[in-house]
Amino acid sequence: MAVVYLDNNATTRVDRQVVEAMLPFFTESFGNASSTHDYGAAVAPALKEARKQVQALLGAEFDHEVVFTSGGTESDTTAIFSAIETSSQRNEIVTSAVEHPAVLNVCQNLERAGRAKVHYIGVSPDGDLDLDAFGAALSDKTALVSIMWANNETGKIFPIVELAKLAKSAGALFHTDAVQAFGKVDMALKDMEVDLLSLSAHKIHGPKGVGALYARKGVKLSPLFRGGKQERGRRAGTENVPGIVGLGAAAERARQTLAEDQARVKSLRDKLESGLLAAVPLTRVNGGGANRLPNTCNIAFDYADGEAVLHKLDRAGVAASSGSACASGSMEPSHVLRALDIPPYALQGAIRFSLSRETTGEDIAKVLATLPEIVANVREKSPLWAEVRPPQVA
Amino acid sequence: MAVVYLDNNATTRVDRQVVEAMLPFFTESFGNASSTHDYGAAVAPALKEARKQVQALLGAEFDHEVVFTSGGTESDTTAIFSAIETSSQRNEIVTSAVEHPAVLNVCQNLERAGRAKVHYIGVSPDGDLDLDAFGAALSDKTALVSIMWANNETGKIFPIVELAKLAKSAGALFHTDAVQAFGKVDMALKDMEVDLLSLSAHKIHGPKGVGALYARKGVKLSPLFRGGKQERGRRAGTENVPGIVGLGAAAERARQTLAEDQARVKSLRDKLESGLLAAVPLTRVNGGGANRLPNTCNIAFDYADGEAVLHKLDRAGVAASSGSACASGSMEPSHVLRALDIPPYALQGAIRFSLSRETTGEDIAKVLATLPEIVANVREKSPLWAEVRPPQVA
Repeated sequence: MAVVYLDNNATTRVDRQVVEAMLPFFTESFGNASSTHDYGAAVAPALKEARKQVQALLGAEFDHEVVFTSGGTESDTTAIFSAIETSSQRNEIVTSAVEHPAVLNVCQNLERAGRAKVHYIGVSPDGDLDLDAFGAALSDKTALVSIMWANNETGKIFPIVELAKLAKSAGALFHTDAVQAFGKVDMALKDMEVDLLSLSAHKIHGPKGVGALYARKGVKLSPLFRGGKQERGRRAGTENVPGIVGLGAAAERARQTLAEDQARVKSLRDKLESGLLAAVPLTRVNGGGANRLPNTCNIAFDYADGEAVLHKLDRAGVAASSGSACASGSMEPSHVLRALDIPPYALQGAIRFSLSRETTGEDIAKVLATLPEIVANVREKSPLWAEVRPPQVA
Repeated sequence: MAVVYLDNNATTRVDRQVVEAMLPFFTESFGNASSTHDYGAAVAPALKEARKQVQALLGAEFDHEVVFTSGGTESDTTAIFSAIETSSQRNEIVTSAVEHPAVLNVCQNLERAGRAKVHYIGVSPDGDLDLDAFGAALSDKTALVSIMWANNETGKIFPIVELAKLAKSAGALFHTDAVQAFGKVDMALKDMEVDLLSLSAHKIHGPKGVGALYARKGVKLSPLFRGGKQERGRRAGTENVPGIVGLGAAAERARQTLAEDQARVKSLRDKLESGLLAAVPLTRVNGGGANRLPNTCNIAFDYADGEAVLHKLDRAGVAASSGSACASGSMEPSHVLRALDIPPYALQGAIRFSLSRETTGEDIAKVLATLPEIVANVREKSPLWAEVRPPQVA
């Protein structure tokens, strides 16, 4: 088992305080929140508190703008379907080419079913959204703009304040998949024009299987799940009380020390990145720059097979990723990296390191001590490497 | 806080063994199952085991027929949407008038959207399905038959073996909402013609927020969540590993002693029922008979306001329900009870007691010692009661 865990964009360790907060709701306060007896009534304040905790981290105006779901994929699906169903005169979606599959696949499916026309906005070689193309795609036919807050593979942050403003000017709904940004960047939704936002607990040291959809007051939501009257009729199904309490506790914990945590994480990430760039020749950062999540480093070693590097890293006790866990095992470079301007001999060597507030200086030191030799060994296996390696590399 | 919990059809206490089984997957084996490193690989066997545990309690032929979801509502929604989307030449649904809202509301919504025609089959005064009407509704237009295995309010069990056979003969898909039946009755899906089945963990002493959709091998499933390739592409979204492990452990625990547990539960339920019928005049069992879940007793006290009885019971330390928790607080008699032949002066007095394997003889004794006086007190408040009460009631 790897001891250094640098795959926090895939999922995070649940904080022990979060588990402690959840435990009473399994075996003691286990009532159904919809029940009218004491067992049911005991649960309502816990749901309320969790809603306020998520509201606080979002910087949202009202706690009832938070609708609890089973996670990011459900939130994305609900947002997109709802926007199409509630926009009678408009049927176009503007999204980016580098969205998470939970957004892209829903859009593609609506397209195939003839229910929507979708514009996929590309990115610059460095991963920034093509704002000209974005502006040109908006029209009075646009029902929904769905652009991620931060990319899960590169960490690139999109200008959500401006994008939301442009979408609203065009009369469209604005949704953002903020699964990777929530808890890592400051959010002040009350001052923004975001209508819908997806988030997930398990990316911020909360439990898997729970998330939320933020829906600004006044935004009409067409529920994906219809049944009971839970979540003000916006999401049927018995509330996952322990999960929701866990999401709330994780949000609260993240909020308390967000600035310090992320400053420290960023300094570790930068140390890792500059260390690798210095120690390993022909190394490049994918989708880099300042406008990135502080915890993410996507780096490519030219002519080194990324899967082989990851496998050796894993055996050396370091867990990282070649991209999104949701597409792992496919061996193909992800749609995100293919959208960037990366030469083919680098594309196969891309590795994502994603840190968390639990990451230590020792973790980073271990990677810096291990990885250069692993890359060198893997490169030796590449027939191209012998021809292209710079003279200073032995 | 009530100490006698007789609302197990709303939700159940999570078994401590189930919580123990879940705990390592929060803070130790916390990996994303889709990740290729050791943290991810450590999780796959746990998901596999849970799938086999659910398979065993279903009596299903293959473990991959089990698709994990966020609960019964998601399973129901997926099954119904999928059936309509994959049946190109057929667009009718046959269901019952007494289904859970998670089925009824989805059907009604498809109907409103013009995507399906729905037949709602009624029940006899005692709650049995009108088989003549059922047969007459089936045709070569029927895409889906969705009939619950057991009713959540009365416990009435429908003849699923025969209904599935009839549906299949008509060329339709057969779905059953088995949220209340799973873990309470023997199931042998491998010998039945059920195509799709919904179940939930939190009704069998497992955690909230997780369930499964059984989809027989060969049945085409149109996913509700599209995104990552989890669950063989049938349900996108990072797997709720602790929840799934909890569902598996709860299923395994239920299976080990199902026959003994349910025999004991039935004997306690029968004791409660006969005791109340003997002690309280003008009392009736709603949707009674042998063909019922062993744990459920829906009983009405004529001229007694059920909400008042429940409130006093709660204060006396007994938690029960007026019907489905999903409709609680509405004060209106449920659609299930209205579908039965219950006179109006009894309808308002209906109470559901739902037992579990944790229910004790003392619990039942407490209800029998408390409830008759409560009913008498509440009846005194009814203006009608003075006119109709039998002479032998003081």
